[in-house]
Amino acid sequence: MISTIKLVFLGTSGSWPSPERGMPSIGVQLDSECILFDIGEGTQRQLMMSSLSFMKVTKIFITHFHGDHFLGLGGLIQTMTLNDRKEKLEIYGPPDTIRQVSTFLNLGYYSLSFPIFVREIEDNEILDFGDYTIKAIRAKHPVHSFSYILKEKDRKRISRELMEKYSLTSKEVDIISKNGSINKNGKLITLDDISDGIRKGRSIVYSGDTSPNDILAEESRNMKIMVHEATVDSSLETKANEYGHSSARQAAEIAKKANVEYLYLTHISPRYRADKVKLLENEAKSIFEKTVVARDFMEIMVQV
Amino acid sequence: MISTIKLVFLGTSGSWPSPERGMPSIGVQLDSECILFDIGEGTQRQLMMSSLSFMKVTKIFITHFHGDHFLGLGGLIQTMTLNDRKEKLEIYGPPDTIRQVSTFLNLGYYSLSFPIFVREIEDNEILDFGDYTIKAIRAKHPVHSFSYILKEKDRKRISRELMEKYSLTSKEVDIISKNGSINKNGKLITLDDISDGIRKGRSIVYSGDTSPNDILAEESRNMKIMVHEATVDSSLETKANEYGHSSARQAAEIAKKANVEYLYLTHISPRYRADKVKLLENEAKSIFEKTVVARDFMEIMVQV
Repeated sequence: MISTIKLVFLGTSGSWPSPERGMPSIGVQLDSECILFDIGEGTQRQLMMSSLSFMKVTKIFITHFHGDHFLGLGGLIQTMTLNDRKEKLEIYGPPDTIRQVSTFLNLGYYSLSFPIFVREIEDNEILDFGDYTIKAIRAKHPVHSFSYILKEKDRKRISRELMEKYSLTSKEVDIISKNGSINKNGKLITLDDISDGIRKGRSIVYSGDTSPNDILAEESRNMKIMVHEATVDSSLETKANEYGHSSARQAAEIAKKANVEYLYLTHISPRYRADKVKLLENEAKSIFEKTVVARDFMEIMVQV
Repeated sequence: MISTIKLVFLGTSGSWPSPERGMPSIGVQLDSECILFDIGEGTQRQLMMSSLSFMKVTKIFITHFHGDHFLGLGGLIQTMTLNDRKEKLEIYGPPDTIRQVSTFLNLGYYSLSFPIFVREIEDNEILDFGDYTIKAIRAKHPVHSFSYILKEKDRKRISRELMEKYSLTSKEVDIISKNGSINKNGKLITLDDISDGIRKGRSIVYSGDTSPNDILAEESRNMKIMVHEATVDSSLETKANEYGHSSARQAAEIAKKANVEYLYLTHISPRYRADKVKLLENEAKSIFEKTVVARDFMEIMVQV
């Protein structure tokens, strides 16, 4: 059962960094574990400057192997080793991930202090991590790339009235949530006894690099948060689409079709310095009101 | 003939970065060309935040293949390619440089837009680049590592009085400096005719990672600027020496033995946050007065 889900933008630039924006990486803290989506160069330092702990990263999901999305992997791994990490690190990505990660691990002199598990995901595969799943959707980009959908599982909603009816403490409810039931004063109380409906799981969609993708919109129906790339403004979208990227306007169209609650734009081309970012936000907002252009270190507590 | 030599600290941390300090890299601008010594993760972004141009980097000298000193290479190369660089990039380093660089170049999907020249240097080798030389001194570190000495060549000093005697303009003097002589009104005027002694070349010593090295002190006799690693303060120097590092106190001893003009300390362990850096500076200054602990983006115009 996950209590806190926090989304942290670690790098919001695309292609190369700018003084304001680091290379692509998004951190998602799920209680005590931390997941990264993409790990551009400099991510370890961005982690150190954020509220997340670089040592608590458990899983890294790479969208694809263009340098800006994964060249921070070697540095983070070597720093973890210098800090004597023992816990396993899991790395997921599209086909070729094993070769790319192995190549990276062969760079420089060091002795790994912890095990690394690498897994190549197939298109549309859903990975089940207990309290949540992550699904990989094929993105529209010149190299094999994924969009990822993180979805907390739906669970039975606990009714405060029913809790009181059975005189249950919060601790006892936690046990029921975990084990399915509790034996209290000789009586078995089940999860069904104290729930009055379904608590919908929270969800985060991360587009990675992609031109507008209707399949992603379908797969993201009614999700909570969509983080979509918006490399350029609409005046440059034809060219951007050719290279497998989207404009802010197109990202907003996808969010609207998907009917998500919030849209965060990222992967902003370094051509858009602080004063020009408003252009992207405005054109997206005219289509999808609840849009924000992400900034490095922006944090979102994902609410139920 | 070099006019301006500017030293820029691009990253002054050691082992891993801190919020204040990036990974090791030093930029030296020699008029229009820019040389890097080491290229830790994040160097391309540090370059973009400095007064140097990442596209004007012509040569990179890597001291050794511990991750903190070279993991920014792939990102810079791929960004140069995305910006359609055509000029050759030269990469120098200790034995194994060709294998390490080749491995790095095989990471990710991209097509290199420019030629890369890689050269492994031998201990004590001097590379001659016309107006300046770079010498590699074996450092005292667990893996094959270099200290580098950049030395502008000595040249004949132009006398203002002799310039006036021959009624020469600055432009004419430039031609003499370049070609050795000029034909003015049917008379040949040579460099010897207008010089009254030797103008000593400027010099920069970069220790890279090393425990105290008397050979480096000898090789650096009377040099202008020494940039020396100072991973820890003297209370931790025994342990630091075991790992091939120096304390601030020991760096100052080397600078004193070498009789350099200025000492800049770098490769500061991330344990020394802003408030504790003064400790390093004070212990070095008590031995070698002209010491400064370098900060990221600090710039020094190297005077004749």
